[in-house]
Amino acid sequence: MSLITEMTPAALRERQEALQQAYDAYKAQNLKLDMSRGKPGAEQLGLTAELTAAVDFAADYKAEDGTDTRNYGVLCGLPETRRLFGEIFGVSPDRVIVGGNASLTLMYDYLATAYMRGVCGGKPWAQQGAIKFLCPVPGYDRHFAITEFLGIEMINVPLTDEGPDMAMVEELVKDPLVKGMWCVPMYANPTGITYSDETVRRLAALRPAAADFRIMWDNAYCLHHFRDTHDKLLNIYAEAEKVGNEDIVLMFTSTSKISFPGAGVGALAASDANLADIKKRMTVQTIGHDKMNMLRHSRYFRDLAGVEAHMEKHAAFLRPRFDVVAKALSNNLAGKGIARWTDPNGGYFISVDLLPGTAKETVRLLKEAGVVLTGAGATFPYGRDPQDANLRIAPSYPPVEELTVAMELFCICAELAAVNKLLTA
Amino acid sequence: MSLITEMTPAALRERQEALQQAYDAYKAQNLKLDMSRGKPGAEQLGLTAELTAAVDFAADYKAEDGTDTRNYGVLCGLPETRRLFGEIFGVSPDRVIVGGNASLTLMYDYLATAYMRGVCGGKPWAQQGAIKFLCPVPGYDRHFAITEFLGIEMINVPLTDEGPDMAMVEELVKDPLVKGMWCVPMYANPTGITYSDETVRRLAALRPAAADFRIMWDNAYCLHHFRDTHDKLLNIYAEAEKVGNEDIVLMFTSTSKISFPGAGVGALAASDANLADIKKRMTVQTIGHDKMNMLRHSRYFRDLAGVEAHMEKHAAFLRPRFDVVAKALSNNLAGKGIARWTDPNGGYFISVDLLPGTAKETVRLLKEAGVVLTGAGATFPYGRDPQDANLRIAPSYPPVEELTVAMELFCICAELAAVNKLLTA
Repeated sequence: MSLITEMTPAALRERQEALQQAYDAYKAQNLKLDMSRGKPGAEQLGLTAELTAAVDFAADYKAEDGTDTRNYGVLCGLPETRRLFGEIFGVSPDRVIVGGNASLTLMYDYLATAYMRGVCGGKPWAQQGAIKFLCPVPGYDRHFAITEFLGIEMINVPLTDEGPDMAMVEELVKDPLVKGMWCVPMYANPTGITYSDETVRRLAALRPAAADFRIMWDNAYCLHHFRDTHDKLLNIYAEAEKVGNEDIVLMFTSTSKISFPGAGVGALAASDANLADIKKRMTVQTIGHDKMNMLRHSRYFRDLAGVEAHMEKHAAFLRPRFDVVAKALSNNLAGKGIARWTDPNGGYFISVDLLPGTAKETVRLLKEAGVVLTGAGATFPYGRDPQDANLRIAPSYPPVEELTVAMELFCICAELAAVNKLLTA
Repeated sequence: MSLITEMTPAALRERQEALQQAYDAYKAQNLKLDMSRGKPGAEQLGLTAELTAAVDFAADYKAEDGTDTRNYGVLCGLPETRRLFGEIFGVSPDRVIVGGNASLTLMYDYLATAYMRGVCGGKPWAQQGAIKFLCPVPGYDRHFAITEFLGIEMINVPLTDEGPDMAMVEELVKDPLVKGMWCVPMYANPTGITYSDETVRRLAALRPAAADFRIMWDNAYCLHHFRDTHDKLLNIYAEAEKVGNEDIVLMFTSTSKISFPGAGVGALAASDANLADIKKRMTVQTIGHDKMNMLRHSRYFRDLAGVEAHMEKHAAFLRPRFDVVAKALSNNLAGKGIARWTDPNGGYFISVDLLPGTAKETVRLLKEAGVVLTGAGATFPYGRDPQDANLRIAPSYPPVEELTVAMELFCICAELAAVNKLLTA
């Protein structure tokens, strides 16, 4: 195996021909595969079938405090569900607000309210001029879509294997127009890395110029290990509390990839001041979220240990899929100087950095052959990857056999795009 | 029975003494009754117990178009649920967006987005100065809370038996700062009246100075008849379409008082332009609402006829409660010049107008004797009833026996407050 950048034009042309033949053969198969989103597969969704019948509401509809879960009310969620999420977040249950079916909506609501009405009595962000948000890249497209929708300028911060480049973050927050930061601290979307203790401590101790700066701590994959080695994430709330800085962070998570992506339960955890601020909006916005679904979840999972045991069943489905991806990349692209990729211990994604200028072309080639990938650029704010290099692979949804085919084809496309690029450069 | 305002001071004092004695006797009973909110009673909630088991998700989780309801996606709702709400709204299913568990949240989101990002490409309301909203009074406190939260000035418009005073509305919308209007057009909260055809036609044909003026048509009680006589409401969307004005209205409803107040399904219907506008925000805010709960509802109710048949069961619980209220008011307050009240054919409320200046005192007296009513003033923007006269009675929640006691006491308190007021005037 030789580095592609060191090959002679003649050798490159020979390789191009072989790759093109292999590509055409796949194309003739009329594939139809979707690796675009981090959706659990059908078998994974079946794991919680019993959850839907965990409560017999004809006979039994009361929460542990006697609340009739069928009726109106209870703004912050059932006690047992707050306790469950308290365990997951590593905070006291009274720090938890249980929401509807999506933590994404909780994040949207938080930022929209900060924009309209301000943070904890501060001036609305909308009235503070050209405000900005820090975006570790590559990152999650739906985060970036929220800040873009609100017209907040996004600043790329490189994500290292330890988390965001903290020296850069510490410098940038000296600007009072920088109002916050997106983080997926564990099994990050898409690289799968987990922030180091040092990174978490520095984030917790951050003293931004803006008093209304907030870290959006989207801990979507906090329990989503699929290998024997589990990453460990420091509790940012506890660290922030130690230095009297607990208002800086808002923690989010959900059961979307624990129970059901469309019908799970989302939650947030925050300091007293932030909770009071959020409740002011919530009392206007809703009478309360779906308590019957909270009760189903609490009865089915009971506690953190119950969820952890359940997550091992998910891991059994995910592990072989991530193995397929790792093996295909390693077998086909290792040592060629074409790609670098991650091999995470959990989460839903693998991030691949291709030869700069070839990510879009790789996606195009795949699409023409019937394999849909997350669009190139999606992992960057405004959909603009300055290098046109990063791609996100989401292996959870397709069956293993299909994934195997798709990954072989992925490697062919990535190398073909690289060879084509070098030959036309 | 004589008019209280024509009684001599001596007769008033005699009546005061009798009422005070009656009041004290009730107070000694240490009652604890809640008539504060329009909550269905426990028996009503039991009517849809089978809905929770309407789908066996272990075997059967697909919508009619094959969508796996357990997974991510489907922004606007399942086809069968959009069709059901289309029938309820009287519009084509593709005009419908099915939301989460509350139409209130759909309304909040609509107005918050108009405020932040504007309506259909228009300038954000936040950037248009001191904008205003028309509020038929008495009205629904949670509506007023949304507009107040957004800092929108609220203008009272008297609600007659035909609907809002349309001459006043037509005059007020000449002001380009007037951006919209709240309406509960059927079995209005709290008076129970239904807008006349004439009112609906004039609203549908409204030509406000502001292009971004919107009618918030909260049809929460569209199927909530409890007497043999059913009110009929003209379809405002069809009327608006006839005059090429369909962008003016957004229709909302939910199953909160059909299935479960905390775990029902909310929906909206709107014109193409408004739908496109709303979807722009929704794609940022959510991946999709709870489709498993949509499927339960669609399987259980099937269609409009299914819901209508079900609503008769609710009526059987509500009718005797409204009878108790009507009877108590009529037996104890008729002909005294103390109170006027409504006797609706549906909905959840009865509105009582007391002697001006006695609503707050009546609520206070009731509370001291253990009966909680919706606060005086709640039916007006900013909680300010300029007359201190209107009270909302919500008879659905308490058992009939308790309601009977509460209403006897209500009448004593209302009359006592009136007598006290006249004696100290």
